[in-house]
Amino acid sequence: MIFTPPYYVVVFVSQRTEQDIAAYDAMAEKMVAGAQKVDGFLGFDSVRDQTGKGITTSYWRDEQAIQSWKINLEHQEAQKLGQKRWYEYYDLHIAKVERAYSKS
Amino acid sequence: MIFTPPYYVVVFVSQRTEQDIAAYDAMAEKMVAGAQKVDGFLGFDSVRDQTGKGITTSYWRDEQAIQSWKINLEHQEAQKLGQKRWYEYYDLHIAKVERAYSKS
Repeated sequence: MIFTPPYYVVVFVSQRTEQDIAAYDAMAEKMVAGAQKVDGFLGFDSVRDQTGKGITTSYWRDEQAIQSWKINLEHQEAQKLGQKRWYEYYDLHIAKVERAYSKS
Repeated sequence: MIFTPPYYVVVFVSQRTEQDIAAYDAMAEKMVAGAQKVDGFLGFDSVRDQTGKGITTSYWRDEQAIQSWKINLEHQEAQKLGQKRWYEYYDLHIAKVERAYSKS
C-alpha cells in the first residue's frame, strides 16, 4: 500500500527474543487493533523471518497521529514489555515520505 | 542501525514470485555489493518471510545518493527483471528521516 505524499512512515526494525511467544502474538494483535483506531493511521506492513528479525512499517497522515499512538496507554504498556522482555534490540526511524511508487 | 538525522530511508515492500529463486538470490547479493559502493549509502535492513513477503529498508545520506543508485546500470537491469519476473507486487516509499531511536 502506498499513499499520496506527504505522509509519514515509522520504520520499526527488531529482533525478537524467544520469550513469551504466545503473549507477544496476542499483544501484537491488540496493538494493530489499537493503532487502527487512531485518527490519521493509514496502514502498515509487517514481516518477521524465522530468525526472529522483523521489520514493521506503519503509515501515518502526520506527526500528530504518530504522537497520539505513541502516548496511548495500552501502547505504552506494550512498549515497556517490549523493552524488558520481547526485543533483544530495536531501531525506530520516523520519516516523512516525499515520493511513493507501486507495481501491482 | 540508526544514524544521525537528517538522512533518507527507502522502504521497499515486496512479494516474491516462485520464479528463479537461485538467480534472484545471486542478484540480490550483487545488488547489496553494488549499493555499498555508492557514495552516501549508509546501510540496510532486510527481512523476508516464508510466504515470500519482504521488507528492505536502505539508508542514505541524501537524495543524490539515492539517485546515483537508482540510475546505476547493473541496478537498472535488476529493476527490469524484478518488474518482469521476480515480484508479484512491490511498493516503494522514499522518506526523509527526522528522528531515530534505538534499544540494544
